[in-house]
Amino acid sequence: MKQSLGAKTFAVPTPVWLVASYDSAGRANCMTIAWGGICSSQPPCVMVCVRKATHTHAGIVQRAAYTVNIPSRTQVSEADFAGMVSGREHDKFAECGFTAVRSTLVDAPYIGEVPLVLECRVVQTHQVGIHTMFVGEILDVKADDSVLRDGRALDMLKVSPIIYDASTRSYFAVGDALGPGWELGKAIGQRKLAGVGDKTE
Amino acid sequence: MKQSLGAKTFAVPTPVWLVASYDSAGRANCMTIAWGGICSSQPPCVMVCVRKATHTHAGIVQRAAYTVNIPSRTQVSEADFAGMVSGREHDKFAECGFTAVRSTLVDAPYIGEVPLVLECRVVQTHQVGIHTMFVGEILDVKADDSVLRDGRALDMLKVSPIIYDASTRSYFAVGDALGPGWELGKAIGQRKLAGVGDKTE
Repeated sequence: MKQSLGAKTFAVPTPVWLVASYDSAGRANCMTIAWGGICSSQPPCVMVCVRKATHTHAGIVQRAAYTVNIPSRTQVSEADFAGMVSGREHDKFAECGFTAVRSTLVDAPYIGEVPLVLECRVVQTHQVGIHTMFVGEILDVKADDSVLRDGRALDMLKVSPIIYDASTRSYFAVGDALGPGWELGKAIGQRKLAGVGDKTE
Repeated sequence: MKQSLGAKTFAVPTPVWLVASYDSAGRANCMTIAWGGICSSQPPCVMVCVRKATHTHAGIVQRAAYTVNIPSRTQVSEADFAGMVSGREHDKFAECGFTAVRSTLVDAPYIGEVPLVLECRVVQTHQVGIHTMFVGEILDVKADDSVLRDGRALDMLKVSPIIYDASTRSYFAVGDALGPGWELGKAIGQRKLAGVGDKTE
């Protein structure tokens, strides 16, 4: 039996990403977001949503660029902090012990200490309710050697990204591997074929 | 040391959602997506991205509605299957053993067997690369009694949503609870205050 919970943002799994930009004074700033996701395969694009009132918003608009910094579970306190305070009053990079690395591809900094980074150039901007959605073309993905398999694919349990649950305002880790895509589903197709066979006999 | 992986869609955690709509013949259809995310808190909105060539795309355009159906880890084979075949040739609801429940709020079906459902009315449509982004206002969230805490919040480990890793094209489960938002970060703020205190003494 399903219960109606009302109009809520309870779409899980929700990511925990640090969006970084330069502010008008050229200082590196970042904020934590959970409203974001990939939005195209070709060219690879991601969208992040921030409110206009944030310091990060102005930085992204001015430089038409941002980075998506994907923290690991060991960085959950830093990620939480960067969502609690404003870059107007805080030097979040310094307070989190983060190194601001200048991207050579887009006019934005990235966080040296997170395992995975996406460097993005803003290609579309849309207002959706109280949030501004910045669609960014991903120009490069950078990952720590230590979280890679064969130098090309991610080792998910080493990246160990964080999941946000808006219903309890709490964080979760990634768990077990469940298996390969474009493989697990074959069992469903075979089940159907078996069923069809039964009927015709 | 960070390695450059090129322009890729490696933004984790990426969701695994079944988007459902009615086709032009009024049949319930669904497809699996990983390109989606919440994009506004007020009104609550979510975006899902599908290619124009898909059967689901036409259904969403015609009815200006869709549902986001969030499968549990026990439904990973069904979710994989629904991303492998087209609703033009397959009755995916029947083949997956899914019940199509008619939404009373939007002109779309939802999947009775998944633990969590978002009923959405299309409010914006954007073309992003090869994908069409449908921004939907979430009119209601429906969840199985069995995955709720106190009847209002989600029990994440019972919903047990699936995570997609585009780099290995494989699926993962949600793992440990990491702690409360707007709490864990206080330790970072205190560390900074402690640091300031040290310097002034």
